[in-house]
Amino acid sequence: MRIDVLTLFPAMFDGVFNASILGKAREKGIVSLHTVNFRDYANNKHNTVDDYPYGGGGGMVLKAEPIFSAVEDILNKKEKPRIILMCPQGEPFSQKKAEELAGESHLIFICGHYEGYDERIREHLVTDELSIGDYVLTGGELPAMVVIDSVVRLLPGVLGNELSAVTDSFSTGLLEYPHYTRPVKFRDWEVPEVLLSGHHDNVAKWRKRQSLLRTLRKRPELLESYPLTPEERKWLEQQRAEMDEQSHT
Amino acid sequence: MRIDVLTLFPAMFDGVFNASILGKAREKGIVSLHTVNFRDYANNKHNTVDDYPYGGGGGMVLKAEPIFSAVEDILNKKEKPRIILMCPQGEPFSQKKAEELAGESHLIFICGHYEGYDERIREHLVTDELSIGDYVLTGGELPAMVVIDSVVRLLPGVLGNELSAVTDSFSTGLLEYPHYTRPVKFRDWEVPEVLLSGHHDNVAKWRKRQSLLRTLRKRPELLESYPLTPEERKWLEQQRAEMDEQSHT
Repeated sequence: MRIDVLTLFPAMFDGVFNASILGKAREKGIVSLHTVNFRDYANNKHNTVDDYPYGGGGGMVLKAEPIFSAVEDILNKKEKPRIILMCPQGEPFSQKKAEELAGESHLIFICGHYEGYDERIREHLVTDELSIGDYVLTGGELPAMVVIDSVVRLLPGVLGNELSAVTDSFSTGLLEYPHYTRPVKFRDWEVPEVLLSGHHDNVAKWRKRQSLLRTLRKRPELLESYPLTPEERKWLEQQRAEMDEQSHT
Repeated sequence: MRIDVLTLFPAMFDGVFNASILGKAREKGIVSLHTVNFRDYANNKHNTVDDYPYGGGGGMVLKAEPIFSAVEDILNKKEKPRIILMCPQGEPFSQKKAEELAGESHLIFICGHYEGYDERIREHLVTDELSIGDYVLTGGELPAMVVIDSVVRLLPGVLGNELSAVTDSFSTGLLEYPHYTRPVKFRDWEVPEVLLSGHHDNVAKWRKRQSLLRTLRKRPELLESYPLTPEERKWLEQQRAEMDEQSHT
């Protein structure tokens, strides 16, 4: 996979692209990551990439020309990459979208910074608009890193333990169960006995119920799309009743 | 504000902490940002910070001891910082949470990487668990950067144009209207005439309606909590009826 990122702040990507999973995926040749400073494509003597908005108002707007030129310089006529605009108005990013993008061979990310984008970029250049969440950030750089990280870790050969890509939260549709490691007693706090029992079925059952319980408590809306067994459904209803009772006393 | 980040990959933060808004906020002395490699607090000769999970299964679990020790080394007995665990099970991060955190004087972020956290960290050390979205990442580092960016930009004196913190999407509760800047005609695509009219009331009305329309099309659920005027409500119902009609033909 090839990934190009258009940004005015390429140095922001150095630490993230060279460390950990992304760094290893590059070393293994699974992905090639490139940053392009689209200021290099400003066709005016002051290297201006933004300008005042038509119609007035505060803030600045990124011009269409430098971004079109930068993208077109990357494009190989034969391939059709996904051209992704990071913006608060975009489609909410999800694990499903990460899986979809992991099937592509070429991704181009466009990152604005403080400014808005000239609407013609949105209408005539990009194939996808993505938002990582309903909070305000100073630019599209961190969101692009988030999307790239979640996509690259899904590429074959990137994660050492293939299992871990499968058993994570949101891959299973439930929040993860609690984990414990040594020591058995840390300060006053002990590991639940069932985990020390060596009884695999009981461990599996405890973990599943903890996952269900945690999801019920913290993110109940996730249970709506989860395929519960009749037994699990009954157990969860009991738990919900107990929680309601406790909150009324 | 003081921010400490516990991570096994401090180098990931270099580019982001030194560039753009965060870099400027540091230079101005508005925020001090520190990374702590909690491997330095491993109390064993192999500097191990993770271990196998009790009860078996794949993956590794971050041990409680090094993280407790690292946090306690930061703590000044007089202050009570927010201690924030970045994890998929956490409360979904929001602009409201960013505003809440911007009122604190000291934040400590704990970033795991691939591994789970020993549950005792969650139960007995942290004050907040945050998730930036329902997608799987390789670690808590990028999520911590996202939260830090959104919080620091809200601190007084950080953004040049104070207005831009207010008029962003999610501050207003609607998606932003389209922006245009020079040239008036780029390739075949022209700027909407109203924006060139110089008629401020018409510009404001067009922008408001574009915001409403874009929110209706892309994120209709945001409209449920938006205080529409009766006129806006009526206009939106017309638009919705037209959209339904088009999708049925």
